Amino acid sequence: MKIINLDHISANPILPEIKDVMIKAIQQDYANPSSQHKSGEQAAEALVKARKSVAKLINCAVEKEIVFTSGGTESINHAIKGVALANADKGKHIITSNIEHNAVIRSIRRLKSAGYKVTSISVDNQCRVNPQDVADAICDETILVSIMHSNNETGTIQPIEEIGKLTKEKKVIFHTDAVDSVGIVPIDVQKLGVDLLSFASNTFYGPAGVGGLYIRRGSRVFPLLDGGVQEHNKRAGAENLIGIIGMGKAAQLARQDMDKRLAHVKEIKEKILKQLPDYIDEYIINTHPEYSLPSLLSISLKYIEGESVMLMLDDENIAVSTRSACATGSLRASHVLMSLGLNHADAQGTLVISFGVDNTKEDVDRFLTALKNAVTTLRDISPLYNKRNSSG
Amino acid sequence: MKIINLDHISANPILPEIKDVMIKAIQQDYANPSSQHKSGEQAAEALVKARKSVAKLINCAVEKEIVFTSGGTESINHAIKGVALANADKGKHIITSNIEHNAVIRSIRRLKSAGYKVTSISVDNQCRVNPQDVADAICDETILVSIMHSNNETGTIQPIEEIGKLTKEKKVIFHTDAVDSVGIVPIDVQKLGVDLLSFASNTFYGPAGVGGLYIRRGSRVFPLLDGGVQEHNKRAGAENLIGIIGMGKAAQLARQDMDKRLAHVKEIKEKILKQLPDYIDEYIINTHPEYSLPSLLSISLKYIEGESVMLMLDDENIAVSTRSACATGSLRASHVLMSLGLNHADAQGTLVISFGVDNTKEDVDRFLTALKNAVTTLRDISPLYNKRNSSG
Repeated sequence: MKIINLDHISANPILPEIKDVMIKAIQQDYANPSSQHKSGEQAAEALVKARKSVAKLINCAVEKEIVFTSGGTESINHAIKGVALANADKGKHIITSNIEHNAVIRSIRRLKSAGYKVTSISVDNQCRVNPQDVADAICDETILVSIMHSNNETGTIQPIEEIGKLTKEKKVIFHTDAVDSVGIVPIDVQKLGVDLLSFASNTFYGPAGVGGLYIRRGSRVFPLLDGGVQEHNKRAGAENLIGIIGMGKAAQLARQDMDKRLAHVKEIKEKILKQLPDYIDEYIINTHPEYSLPSLLSISLKYIEGESVMLMLDDENIAVSTRSACATGSLRASHVLMSLGLNHADAQGTLVISFGVDNTKEDVDRFLTALKNAVTTLRDISPLYNKRNSSG
Repeated sequence: MKIINLDHISANPILPEIKDVMIKAIQQDYANPSSQHKSGEQAAEALVKARKSVAKLINCAVEKEIVFTSGGTESINHAIKGVALANADKGKHIITSNIEHNAVIRSIRRLKSAGYKVTSISVDNQCRVNPQDVADAICDETILVSIMHSNNETGTIQPIEEIGKLTKEKKVIFHTDAVDSVGIVPIDVQKLGVDLLSFASNTFYGPAGVGGLYIRRGSRVFPLLDGGVQEHNKRAGAENLIGIIGMGKAAQLARQDMDKRLAHVKEIKEKILKQLPDYIDEYIINTHPEYSLPSLLSISLKYIEGESVMLMLDDENIAVSTRSACATGSLRASHVLMSLGLNHADAQGTLVISFGVDNTKEDVDRFLTALKNAVTTLRDISPLYNKRNSSG
């Protein structure tokens, strides 16, 4: 039976056209782009082409502002630690939100233990940061604001443009983790007014383990990887050229097909939201009705464990997730869901359904049927559910 | 005309069998190895298989001691900064040598500006560190010794085993940058007695932009990339699975074919050394006669510029290098060659010839003929050479 991928937030398939250019790159026997002989030059040209394509995707006018990295996590570590260390003489205060990805949280925690001070802005019960809270938190010591563009568990999109205006006015460097947004929704670094923006290739159907960091010209940022002069002296190390070429192609396709892809995932989201009440009851939709990724739905199912539902769906060859794949193995309830004001039980009952270009309406039908079966079975044996029923 | 690659130190071709497994991995549509559903498990298994293969190559008994990274530079940054930050409470003194790769030099420089103290051991005129110098430099404050296994410009191999005994005795963490050694010469982390060892896939014909860091169990090292729980909590970020699978295959082949490959490159090295006097005169061999990579020769050509020779050879479709590709664009003479006591002019006249499994004896003949032509042409127009001739 075909596996239905409704866990695009963990991993997207590499699209056939992207596979083709990667396979061609493998066959090409590229030399080192930093070598000065002919074969080095061909590799350097391939690198420039990919950089231009990625720059265009986020409307970055100067392609050298793009630094290729090993993925979203490296980009985020580079941005946060790089800005903090390079600007320590100005101050040591950082502002972030309480729903960030672990890469942001733990990078900042690392800095905290080195004497940096941190203000963590709470989101409202729809998972949104209030820009005024950011403005209020900025002080003379503030050197960095890092607020994510979209959340990987709820899909909620933050008011980045409004925050960008504030940080520009107050001359504070602004980084946004846009790992789950770039290539999915239109992203324009000029319009957003950010100084740094992290993204990852796999979000837009390129290979995993490749990403980028946009660094606006003139921003003071130390490299995370010190060494050779690659990436215009901003990130040392021999390039993952095959992956970068794949990301270049993925960026080109994402730009070209953006509208078509948006329409497709919106249709799927609407179909799920519309039909869900016909299949199950007693659930909470955690995804913002307006400001959210069109490709993601977070649903908290009352009285049961999301993980049990996930495993039962897996038996039916349907892949969904309960939370960020990066947090696998952790037993604690999601910090994101708790921050919305969900109680512990509801947070544990959460499923993240994320879809993409490869999903069909038939996938949705199969998913909804399987979900109904799983929920019914699990509620039948749920003490919480039975107690609630007998008292109701 | 076929391009002859005598610049293996900058980039090795990916071997056909490795290309095949990478292409298969691209076609496989792997999910995220951290996902908990079935497709995630397949990816996790592929990751384990690659880790076991890489662990075997360096005789690491516990495969979890291998951390996959984005290459040698990340491994080195992780090792040096990770040890320094995790052990700052014990002391802030680091010992290194004056011939290290820029990734080591600049990682340590970054720490220096954060208050760490550094002792840089000078090598002798054959590019070797004296272990006694390391012993003498160790003090109560010393938390890390970082000495490279083999040098990327001269090929000289350091007495790592002897240094390993000293550091073990004095309970100082020992890291070796073995990026140009692993997969080329036998490396055994038990025998070497190192605590951390950096390596890169492309050295042994795997893809570029993938590497690993061996971290002996119990070593105190902070992650460089904070975030998710990947790599047993030692390195966050979605894995470059295609690259890692390629490295796993490359490690398997390197182990299996080690003796055959060693014999092949030794033969080429001996042929060049034996025939060189028939083609040119007035040169210095910088490569250690005994302790050196069998796959590399550094030759300083008197009275001319190595870069001019490199460009003339490039016109004949022969790729060589003058120094580390990571230092391209720098006009300064190599710090490695200067540290051997070469004068500035001889350092600038240096060629690095590095060969591999794909080179033939015919390649050597074509190279020597082209080298003779280049040297003759350049010396004809060299004021230094003509002055020396008229006065001699």
